[in-house]
Amino acid sequence: MKYISLLGATGSIGTQTLNIIKEHANEFQLAAMTVGRNITLARKIIAEFKPELVSVADKEDMDNLKLEFPNVKFTFGNDGLVEAAVYVKSTILVNAVIGSVGLYPTLEAIRAGKTICIANKETLVTAGHLVMNAAREFDVPILPVDSEHSAIFQALQGEKEKNIEKLILTASGGSFRDKSRDELQNVTVSEALNHPNWSMGAKITIDSATMMNKGLEVIEAHWLFDIPYEKIDVLLHKESIIHSMVEFHDSSVIAQLGTPDMRVPIQYALTYPDRLPLSTANRLNLAEIGRLHFNHMDFNRFKCLQFAFDAGKAGGTLPTVLNAANEAAVEAFLNGKITFLQIEELIEKSLTAHDSIKDPDLSLIQEVDQETRAFVYSLLK
Amino acid sequence: MKYISLLGATGSIGTQTLNIIKEHANEFQLAAMTVGRNITLARKIIAEFKPELVSVADKEDMDNLKLEFPNVKFTFGNDGLVEAAVYVKSTILVNAVIGSVGLYPTLEAIRAGKTICIANKETLVTAGHLVMNAAREFDVPILPVDSEHSAIFQALQGEKEKNIEKLILTASGGSFRDKSRDELQNVTVSEALNHPNWSMGAKITIDSATMMNKGLEVIEAHWLFDIPYEKIDVLLHKESIIHSMVEFHDSSVIAQLGTPDMRVPIQYALTYPDRLPLSTANRLNLAEIGRLHFNHMDFNRFKCLQFAFDAGKAGGTLPTVLNAANEAAVEAFLNGKITFLQIEELIEKSLTAHDSIKDPDLSLIQEVDQETRAFVYSLLK
Repeated sequence: MKYISLLGATGSIGTQTLNIIKEHANEFQLAAMTVGRNITLARKIIAEFKPELVSVADKEDMDNLKLEFPNVKFTFGNDGLVEAAVYVKSTILVNAVIGSVGLYPTLEAIRAGKTICIANKETLVTAGHLVMNAAREFDVPILPVDSEHSAIFQALQGEKEKNIEKLILTASGGSFRDKSRDELQNVTVSEALNHPNWSMGAKITIDSATMMNKGLEVIEAHWLFDIPYEKIDVLLHKESIIHSMVEFHDSSVIAQLGTPDMRVPIQYALTYPDRLPLSTANRLNLAEIGRLHFNHMDFNRFKCLQFAFDAGKAGGTLPTVLNAANEAAVEAFLNGKITFLQIEELIEKSLTAHDSIKDPDLSLIQEVDQETRAFVYSLLK
Repeated sequence: MKYISLLGATGSIGTQTLNIIKEHANEFQLAAMTVGRNITLARKIIAEFKPELVSVADKEDMDNLKLEFPNVKFTFGNDGLVEAAVYVKSTILVNAVIGSVGLYPTLEAIRAGKTICIANKETLVTAGHLVMNAAREFDVPILPVDSEHSAIFQALQGEKEKNIEKLILTASGGSFRDKSRDELQNVTVSEALNHPNWSMGAKITIDSATMMNKGLEVIEAHWLFDIPYEKIDVLLHKESIIHSMVEFHDSSVIAQLGTPDMRVPIQYALTYPDRLPLSTANRLNLAEIGRLHFNHMDFNRFKCLQFAFDAGKAGGTLPTVLNAANEAAVEAFLNGKITFLQIEELIEKSLTAHDSIKDPDLSLIQEVDQETRAFVYSLLK
């Protein structure tokens, strides 16, 4: 039995992780979890999965839940995130929170020797060097949950890093892939939230539409697989069937394919290096799909991807700025405060205004993260 | 330094194997080789690669070459094939001959402890159980050279056999993939030899046009990967970019892709489990290719594939009959003695006329092979 701490249990990745735990009740058990403010769903999950420890965002919610579930231990806030991440019974942390708030609990879980299944890409973007150095120091595996990184991870099994020619991340193009930049002027929030292939949370769906999601994934891939940015390519592939690929120096390419179903990479991270059946998954039927399409990435059309490559290559505190500015700008867009194209304007202004500092430690990263958000908010006034 | 015995050095796979040996002269050396009747090319190869032992088809050719190359040891005929296969200095046998003539030298090389790189699929079709049992007994790896099987082999690295849901062999459809059965009535030999994707020898190119090549590959895959026929699918994929795939029980699919270049699987077999650079290979560029197409296999259109599945599942001496009848029929077609559609007629008649015998040993297989060829010849008169 593997005991799991799940951060972000009520989100898209969280609920799909619970689906996998339920599917393999003899293999996995939910030991600890965190939720935000979706207490209705939290209540259902507690009743069904019976975690020993639950952390919520607000103290008031905690106090109410304590009365309903006297046998469960409750906690709250940022400290609660860490408490759940390092819960003693758990050997695995599934980090499925959104944003750089996932960084500190991840570092603490690494220090506590937990295996990290990381769906929270912002953690690796904002502080990839800290996470990977800690993982090496404490000899803890960092297993990807993102479908693209899971695809690369699967393609690399049995292979040697020295033989990698390049990683090829595929990108669906998101909600607006068929629109020109001019046509992006007046797009709405609900149009942006309508992803053609994947059903995901709001933040990542907007990130897909701006292509920042792929930019964050490029930086994530750099850290997870210890690969220079020059060896990471992005390929437009609108069907999201080939989830990503690795080209080796003999020209052979290994790819991982499947129907778009996040439960597959989630389960692979949980069962790695083995696999378990997933009978409820839709099987890939390429004959019925008929055609797969591929196209060059357009870095002028998708400026955020260029920002990410530039910030990644520059390093220092720039990736932290990139991520924090993006989080703040996407939040502003979702709240109707800015237009879609202003997301990238705000990110560009934040990057331009920042003087990068080399080798930042955790406190500097947290400081730059907060300053960047404040800078974006100041531009909104 | 790895020393190589190469059977069929002047053929398509043979010359490409030599290209790889030349590309990596510090890694590989040609120790022994066999050729048929292409003495002009043999002469060039001997001068360039300086093998210690050379076997030719005919004694007369051997006597002539002996005078020209006094420092090389020469031999000839079927005994020469075996002598080259088990040549003491070699640790690797690359079997690139055409047809079931490759069986006996392969078995002898296994007994001599050589690593077998098998491009000679007929050997596994006609006597897969003997080859694989011998490989297990003498603890010798059988490494695939066929692009499809190499793809599956690469996809299986780091994976467990128990987790395989199915193998998916891709098929280009061959020279006549866009023709109906009616349109096949009057096709010519030169039309059949014009494969859209791969430049290969005459026999395999005809086998591709009849889809028997895929049938032989299905049986080959059954033996190489110890997989029941029910778990082997064939998918039409006209670009030959995805060379084959493995679906696991969690629905994840791992595929190997590349431009059609047989040097890649040849080199992989020689370098396995490592890879070496192949700087002269054309890199896959999916954005430029733009689209990949897939279609259901039509077992009525391609009867030979159905024959192969049926013969494989029935087992016993039927796969030997399938292979021998096909070799004889393709030879007759190439010599202008029969029409294209008569190839499958002759195979069907041979299979129907044969009473299968279980668990055949080598001498029975050789007997059935000869009888089947004689039966096909008798129908040609």
